[in-house]
Amino acid sequence: MNLGRLNHVGVATPDIDTAIAFWRDTMGATIVSEPFDMPAQGVRVCFVDTPNGGTQIELISPLDESSPLTGFLERNPLGGQHHMAFEVPNIEAARAEFEAEGKRILGPTRIGAHGTPVFFVHPKDMNGTLTEIMETPAHG
Amino acid sequence: MNLGRLNHVGVATPDIDTAIAFWRDTMGATIVSEPFDMPAQGVRVCFVDTPNGGTQIELISPLDESSPLTGFLERNPLGGQHHMAFEVPNIEAARAEFEAEGKRILGPTRIGAHGTPVFFVHPKDMNGTLTEIMETPAHG
Repeated sequence: MNLGRLNHVGVATPDIDTAIAFWRDTMGATIVSEPFDMPAQGVRVCFVDTPNGGTQIELISPLDESSPLTGFLERNPLGGQHHMAFEVPNIEAARAEFEAEGKRILGPTRIGAHGTPVFFVHPKDMNGTLTEIMETPAHG
Repeated sequence: MNLGRLNHVGVATPDIDTAIAFWRDTMGATIVSEPFDMPAQGVRVCFVDTPNGGTQIELISPLDESSPLTGFLERNPLGGQHHMAFEVPNIEAARAEFEAEGKRILGPTRIGAHGTPVFFVHPKDMNGTLTEIMETPAHG
Protein backbone atom coordinates (compact mmCIF):
# COMPACT_ATOMS: atom_id res chain seq x y z
CA MET A 1 0.00 0.00 0.00
CA ASN A 2 0.94 3.66 -0.18
CA LEU A 3 1.29 5.47 3.13
CA GLY A 4 -1.78 7.60 3.70
CA ARG A 5 -2.50 10.67 5.72
CA LEU A 6 -1.93 10.38 9.48
CA ASN A 7 -5.55 11.05 10.40
CA HIS A 8 -5.19 11.02 14.17
CA VAL A 9 -3.15 9.99 17.16
CA GLY A 10 -5.27 8.11 19.69
CA VAL A 11 -4.58 9.15 23.28
CA ALA A 12 -6.16 7.11 26.06
CA THR A 13 -7.30 8.83 29.22
CA PRO A 14 -9.06 7.62 32.36
CA ASP A 15 -11.37 10.65 32.32
CA ILE A 16 -12.26 12.42 29.09
CA ASP A 17 -13.50 15.63 30.72
CA THR A 18 -10.22 16.09 32.59
CA ALA A 19 -8.35 15.40 29.37
CA ILE A 20 -10.40 17.97 27.46
CA ALA A 21 -9.66 20.57 30.14
CA PHE A 22 -5.93 19.75 29.83
CA TRP A 23 -5.97 20.16 26.05
CA ARG A 24 -7.87 23.44 26.27
CA ASP A 25 -6.13 25.00 29.26
CA THR A 26 -2.54 23.71 29.09
CA MET A 27 -2.10 22.96 25.39
CA GLY A 28 -4.28 25.81 24.12
CA ALA A 29 -6.61 23.83 21.87
CA THR A 30 -9.59 25.84 20.64
CA ILE A 31 -11.55 23.26 18.63
CA VAL A 32 -12.62 20.18 20.58
CA SER A 33 -15.58 18.11 19.46
CA GLU A 34 -18.39 17.09 21.79
CA PRO A 35 -17.60 13.65 23.34
CA PHE A 36 -19.78 10.75 22.27
CA ASP A 37 -20.07 7.08 23.22
CA MET A 38 -19.15 4.21 20.93
CA PRO A 39 -20.70 1.30 22.84
CA ALA A 40 -19.59 -1.38 20.36
CA GLN A 41 -15.97 -0.38 21.00
CA GLY A 42 -16.44 0.27 24.71
CA VAL A 43 -15.10 3.81 24.51
CA ARG A 44 -16.09 7.44 24.80
CA VAL A 45 -14.44 9.60 22.15
CA CYS A 46 -13.77 13.19 21.16
CA PHE A 47 -11.40 14.93 18.76
CA VAL A 48 -9.01 17.80 19.36
CA ASP A 49 -8.17 19.71 16.18
CA THR A 50 -4.62 20.90 15.57
CA PRO A 51 -3.94 23.95 13.38
CA ASN A 52 -3.82 24.05 9.58
CA GLY A 53 -5.95 20.97 9.10
CA GLY A 54 -3.32 18.88 10.82
CA THR A 55 -3.53 15.49 12.40
CA GLN A 56 -6.18 15.31 15.12
CA ILE A 57 -5.76 14.02 18.64
CA GLU A 58 -8.45 11.44 19.43
CA LEU A 59 -9.16 11.30 23.15
CA ILE A 60 -10.58 7.94 24.24
CA SER A 61 -11.77 6.83 27.65
CA PRO A 62 -13.31 3.52 28.73
CA LEU A 63 -17.09 3.21 28.98
CA ASP A 64 -16.81 0.49 31.62
CA GLU A 65 -14.52 -2.21 33.02
CA SER A 66 -14.99 -4.42 29.96
CA SER A 67 -13.53 -1.75 27.68
CA PRO A 68 -10.50 -2.74 25.59
CA LEU A 69 -8.81 0.31 27.18
CA THR A 70 -8.95 -1.13 30.69
CA GLY A 71 -5.71 -3.08 30.39
CA PHE A 72 -3.88 -0.15 28.84
CA LEU A 73 -4.99 2.15 31.67
CA GLU A 74 -3.96 -0.40 34.29
CA ARG A 75 -0.45 -0.27 32.81
CA ASN A 76 -0.65 3.51 32.22
CA PRO A 77 -2.91 5.01 34.91
CA LEU A 78 -2.49 8.57 33.60
CA GLY A 79 -3.24 7.49 30.04
CA GLY A 80 -0.96 8.13 27.08
CA GLN A 81 -0.46 7.51 23.40
CA HIS A 82 -2.51 4.47 22.42
CA HIS A 83 -2.60 4.17 18.60
CA MET A 84 -1.98 5.91 15.28
CA ALA A 85 -4.59 5.96 12.50
CA PHE A 86 -3.66 6.15 8.82
CA GLU A 87 -6.05 6.73 5.94
CA VAL A 88 -6.40 4.43 2.95
CA PRO A 89 -8.58 4.88 -0.15
CA ASN A 90 -10.07 1.34 0.04
CA ILE A 91 -10.41 -0.55 3.31
CA GLU A 92 -10.95 -4.00 1.74
CA ALA A 93 -7.82 -3.73 -0.37
CA ALA A 94 -5.79 -2.58 2.62
CA ARG A 95 -7.09 -5.42 4.79
CA ALA A 96 -6.19 -7.95 2.11
CA GLU A 97 -2.65 -6.55 1.94
CA PHE A 98 -2.08 -6.75 5.70
CA GLU A 99 -3.55 -10.26 5.77
CA ALA A 100 -1.29 -11.32 2.91
CA GLU A 101 1.68 -10.11 4.97
CA GLY A 102 0.53 -12.27 7.88
CA LYS A 103 -0.26 -9.32 10.15
CA ARG A 104 -2.71 -10.06 12.95
CA ILE A 105 -5.86 -7.97 12.45
CA LEU A 106 -7.90 -7.41 15.59
CA GLY A 107 -11.48 -8.37 14.84
CA PRO A 108 -13.71 -7.49 11.93
CA THR A 109 -13.70 -4.29 9.93
CA ARG A 110 -16.21 -1.95 11.56
CA ILE A 111 -17.38 1.64 11.46
CA GLY A 112 -15.01 3.98 13.26
CA ALA A 113 -15.44 7.33 14.97
CA HIS A 114 -15.35 9.22 11.65
CA GLY A 115 -18.13 7.07 10.18
CA THR A 116 -15.90 5.15 7.76
CA PRO A 117 -14.77 1.50 7.97
CA VAL A 118 -11.66 0.80 10.06
CA PHE A 119 -9.63 -2.10 11.38
CA PHE A 120 -6.78 -2.40 13.88
CA VAL A 121 -3.50 -4.26 13.44
CA HIS A 122 -1.77 -5.91 16.42
CA PRO A 123 1.09 -3.83 17.86
CA LYS A 124 3.32 -6.91 18.03
CA ASP A 125 3.24 -7.08 14.23
CA MET A 126 3.68 -3.30 13.84
CA ASN A 127 6.93 -2.48 15.68
CA GLY A 128 5.01 -1.97 18.92
CA THR A 129 2.41 0.50 17.67
CA LEU A 130 -1.28 -0.40 17.67
CA THR A 131 -2.23 0.78 14.19
CA GLU A 132 -5.66 1.77 12.93
CA ILE A 133 -6.28 1.66 9.20
CA MET A 134 -9.31 3.74 8.22
CA GLU A 135 -10.99 4.56 4.97
CA THR A 136 -10.54 8.25 4.18
CA PRO A 137 -13.52 10.30 5.37
CA ALA A 138 -15.39 12.16 2.63
CA HIS A 139 -14.29 15.53 3.99
CA GLY A 140 -10.69 14.40 4.33
CA MET B 1 -0.34 29.20 24.73
CA ASN B 2 -2.17 28.40 21.50
CA LEU B 3 -1.98 24.82 20.30
CA GLY B 4 0.50 24.61 17.44
CA ARG B 5 1.01 22.24 14.58
CA LEU B 6 1.63 18.60 15.50
CA ASN B 7 5.09 18.47 13.93
CA HIS B 8 5.85 14.79 14.55
CA VAL B 9 5.08 11.68 16.51
CA GLY B 10 8.23 10.17 17.97
CA VAL B 11 8.35 6.39 17.64
CA ALA B 12 11.10 4.53 19.47
CA THR B 13 12.65 1.47 17.91
CA PRO B 14 15.47 -0.85 18.95
CA ASP B 15 16.88 -0.86 15.40
CA ILE B 16 16.35 2.07 13.07
CA ASP B 17 17.20 0.19 9.86
CA THR B 18 14.58 -2.48 10.60
CA ALA B 19 12.08 0.26 11.38
CA ILE B 20 12.82 2.07 8.11
CA ALA B 21 12.27 -1.17 6.21
CA PHE B 22 8.93 -1.63 8.01
CA TRP B 23 7.77 1.90 7.13
CA ARG B 24 8.80 1.49 3.49
CA ASP B 25 7.68 -2.08 2.89
CA THR B 26 4.61 -2.54 5.13
CA MET B 27 3.31 1.02 5.50
CA GLY B 28 4.27 2.20 2.01
CA ALA B 29 6.28 5.29 2.95
CA THR B 30 8.19 6.77 0.02
CA ILE B 31 10.06 9.68 1.65
CA VAL B 32 12.35 8.68 4.52
CA SER B 33 15.27 10.89 5.49
CA GLU B 34 18.79 9.57 5.95
CA PRO B 35 19.33 8.58 9.62
CA PHE B 36 21.75 10.71 11.62
CA ASP B 37 23.17 10.59 15.14
CA MET B 38 22.35 13.12 17.85
CA PRO B 39 25.06 12.26 20.41
CA ALA B 40 23.96 14.89 22.95
CA GLN B 41 20.55 13.20 23.11
CA GLY B 42 21.90 9.66 22.84
CA VAL B 43 19.73 8.82 19.84
CA ARG B 44 19.87 8.06 16.14
CA VAL B 45 17.04 9.74 14.23
CA CYS B 46 15.28 9.81 10.90
CA PHE B 47 11.98 11.17 9.62
CA VAL B 48 9.23 9.45 7.66
CA ASP B 49 7.08 11.88 5.69
CA THR B 50 3.33 11.35 5.51
CA PRO B 51 1.33 12.66 2.52
CA ASN B 52 0.11 16.22 1.98
CA GLY B 53 2.70 17.81 4.23
CA GLY B 54 1.25 15.95 7.19
CA THR B 55 2.71 15.18 10.57
CA GLN B 56 5.99 13.30 10.31
CA ILE B 57 6.94 10.10 12.10
CA GLU B 58 10.27 10.53 13.87
CA LEU B 59 12.03 7.18 14.27
CA ILE B 60 14.49 7.18 17.17
CA SER B 61 16.83 4.45 18.33
CA PRO B 62 19.36 4.45 21.17
CA LEU B 63 23.00 5.20 20.40
CA ASP B 64 24.16 3.15 23.39
CA GLU B 65 23.10 1.81 26.80
CA SER B 66 23.20 5.27 28.38
CA SER B 67 20.54 6.56 25.97
CA PRO B 68 17.37 7.99 27.53
CA LEU B 69 15.53 5.47 25.30
CA THR B 70 17.01 2.47 27.09
CA GLY B 71 14.38 2.36 29.84
CA PHE B 72 11.53 2.79 27.37
CA LEU B 73 12.82 -0.07 25.23
CA GLU B 74 13.23 -2.31 28.27
CA ARG B 75 9.53 -1.77 28.97
CA ASN B 76 8.62 -1.93 25.25
CA PRO B 77 11.13 -4.22 23.53
CA LEU B 78 9.52 -3.80 20.10
CA GLY B 79 9.44 -0.01 20.45
CA GLY B 80 6.33 2.11 20.12
CA GLN B 81 4.91 5.62 20.37
CA HIS B 82 7.30 7.63 22.54
CA HIS B 83 6.39 11.35 22.36
CA MET B 84 4.43 14.01 20.46
CA ALA B 85 6.04 17.26 19.31
CA PHE B 86 4.06 20.48 18.93
CA GLU B 87 5.33 23.69 17.32
CA VAL B 88 5.35 27.07 19.04
CA PRO B 89 6.38 30.44 17.59
CA ASN B 90 8.64 31.34 20.54
CA ILE B 91 10.37 28.69 22.65
CA GLU B 92 11.26 31.00 25.56
CA ALA B 93 7.68 32.19 25.95
CA ALA B 94 6.37 28.63 25.82
CA ARG B 95 8.90 27.45 28.40
CA ALA B 96 7.90 30.28 30.72
CA GLU B 97 4.23 29.31 30.41
CA PHE B 98 4.84 25.64 31.23
CA GLU B 99 7.07 26.63 34.14
CA ALA B 100 4.41 29.02 35.45
CA GLU B 101 1.95 26.10 35.42
CA GLY B 102 4.38 24.05 37.51
CA LYS B 103 5.06 21.49 34.77
CA ARG B 104 8.32 19.59 35.12
CA ILE B 105 10.57 20.40 32.16
CA LEU B 106 13.22 17.80 31.43
CA GLY B 107 16.56 19.57 31.23
CA PRO B 108 17.58 22.70 29.38
CA THR B 109 16.23 23.95 26.09
CA ARG B 110 18.45 22.54 23.36
CA ILE B 111 18.63 22.21 19.59
CA GLY B 112 16.38 19.45 18.28
CA ALA B 113 16.45 17.26 15.20
CA HIS B 114 14.96 20.02 13.01
CA GLY B 115 17.63 22.52 14.06
CA THR B 116 15.34 24.65 16.23
CA PRO B 117 15.25 24.91 20.04
CA VAL B 118 13.14 22.32 21.87
CA PHE B 119 12.33 21.15 25.37
CA PHE B 120 10.49 18.15 26.79
CA VAL B 121 7.77 18.14 29.45
CA HIS B 122 7.42 15.23 31.87
CA PRO B 123 4.67 12.75 30.91
CA LYS B 124 3.42 12.66 34.50
CA ASP B 125 2.44 16.32 34.14
CA MET B 126 0.99 15.82 30.64
CA ASN B 127 -1.67 13.13 31.02
CA GLY B 128 0.89 10.40 30.40
CA THR B 129 2.36 11.73 27.15
CA LEU B 130 6.00 12.81 26.95
CA THR B 131 5.58 16.12 25.12
CA GLU B 132 8.15 17.94 23.03
CA ILE B 133 7.70 21.66 22.48
CA MET B 134 9.71 22.91 19.52
CA GLU B 135 10.14 26.25 17.84
CA THR B 136 8.60 26.14 14.36
CA PRO B 137 11.20 25.32 11.72
CA ALA B 138 11.72 28.00 9.07
CA HIS B 139 10.27 25.78 6.33
CA GLY B 140 7.32 24.77 8.50
